[in-house]
Amino acid sequence: MRYVRVARPDGPAFGVVRDDHVVLLDGHPFAEHELTDRVAPLDSVRLLAPVLPSKVLCVGKNYADHAAEMGGDVPAEPLIFMKPATAVIGPDDEIRLPALSTSVHHEAELAVVIGRLTRRVPVERALEAVLGYTCANDVTARDLQKRDGQWTRGKGFDTFCPLGPWIDTDVDPSTGLGVRCEVNETVRQDGTTADLVFDVAQLVAYCAAFATLLPGDVLLTGTPAGVGELRDGDTVTVTVDGIGQLTNRVVSDR
Amino acid sequence: MRYVRVARPDGPAFGVVRDDHVVLLDGHPFAEHELTDRVAPLDSVRLLAPVLPSKVLCVGKNYADHAAEMGGDVPAEPLIFMKPATAVIGPDDEIRLPALSTSVHHEAELAVVIGRLTRRVPVERALEAVLGYTCANDVTARDLQKRDGQWTRGKGFDTFCPLGPWIDTDVDPSTGLGVRCEVNETVRQDGTTADLVFDVAQLVAYCAAFATLLPGDVLLTGTPAGVGELRDGDTVTVTVDGIGQLTNRVVSDR
Repeated sequence: MRYVRVARPDGPAFGVVRDDHVVLLDGHPFAEHELTDRVAPLDSVRLLAPVLPSKVLCVGKNYADHAAEMGGDVPAEPLIFMKPATAVIGPDDEIRLPALSTSVHHEAELAVVIGRLTRRVPVERALEAVLGYTCANDVTARDLQKRDGQWTRGKGFDTFCPLGPWIDTDVDPSTGLGVRCEVNETVRQDGTTADLVFDVAQLVAYCAAFATLLPGDVLLTGTPAGVGELRDGDTVTVTVDGIGQLTNRVVSDR
Repeated sequence: MRYVRVARPDGPAFGVVRDDHVVLLDGHPFAEHELTDRVAPLDSVRLLAPVLPSKVLCVGKNYADHAAEMGGDVPAEPLIFMKPATAVIGPDDEIRLPALSTSVHHEAELAVVIGRLTRRVPVERALEAVLGYTCANDVTARDLQKRDGQWTRGKGFDTFCPLGPWIDTDVDPSTGLGVRCEVNETVRQDGTTADLVFDVAQLVAYCAAFATLLPGDVLLTGTPAGVGELRDGDTVTVTVDGIGQLTNRVVSDR
């Protein structure tokens, strides 16, 4: 199943993808819901971020090759930080380069979408908390991240958390899904979730040990090596195999 | 004006305090609203956290004496971190000491409640974004804060963000409001907002420069010297002069 969130004249609505169409839902993916008879061609709707999370938890240095390119080792425990919900944008929305930073990087990631309220769950049962997966770009003002020490500002600008195109409930990251980033059709990052230092179940259990996870919360699982600059006019695409592609244009506010 | 949020049989409702009574609102403090004729004695209602924020932004080391006791200098710019909304509790709710930490500290703070959507506001106009102020306790697992490097987990446990008792719209922190913390009636922290390194207008402008502030968002302004351990059975009270008192009992999950 693939859940989308789409712009409608009467406001955002959830739907499911059936072949090349969207079937709108009565309700939402996080509780009982029914399909309606309202159907629209997929290429005629505007896709929004597939969820508006109450929190976006993120993991740093969760691929060994990226930890190395950042000049560090893999942490002994997951390294957790947050992005504000105001950073979330959807497919085809613009990533804005802020005047406050001279170095904004892409970071292609697998994102986990939480399906149910979850608190203190053992690793063996942690995947029960997961509704599905989507693509994310953990856009980062690298200069501010390093200067501030705390990563909240460097990772937290408006537009710095593209999510989409949909929530796929069938993929299994433990099988090794390719995670790629292309900028203007040049491959910059090319990894696989088989190389996650801490896997999805471990990350969910680790986060649920300190903060209650709510339906719609999002967990970004870290980025493989190859992060690099985004520039005005760039087109950046995050692909997670089995899920889909998340494309955003880059526009400068400098 | 003092806005409260209270538990009602049909769910949380906002009200205003009039002498020793609460007058319920039709609507909420962040848009046009009217007083109703529903009135209850203040000591008969259960006060909730006065707002459920979409984000809680916090500032580290914003009093020189606290920066010194943490073994550091005052930062050149505000040091921003976040707490998840799931950490928020209200007056008289329990602070839970998690089994994962052996050292949980109180941090008494003035909290700013944002009244309107605000993005990139100059310092001179930043106070227009503020609806009012409340008391906060930036509860911190000090051992995890230091071990993790990023502060999200150590600051982000459920119950680690007590807020209340109400939103006071009349106080002016620039006049120097006393900020105190008492544990079991012993004064542990005793500062004044006159000693804020970055004042409220500077903090609001700094945060609104990277993230859009939404109505109900909360900004914790940092803590004065005297932070220390909370133990099972403690009663901790944060007082901000001119606003009121926020009291919570401490219960151990260890």
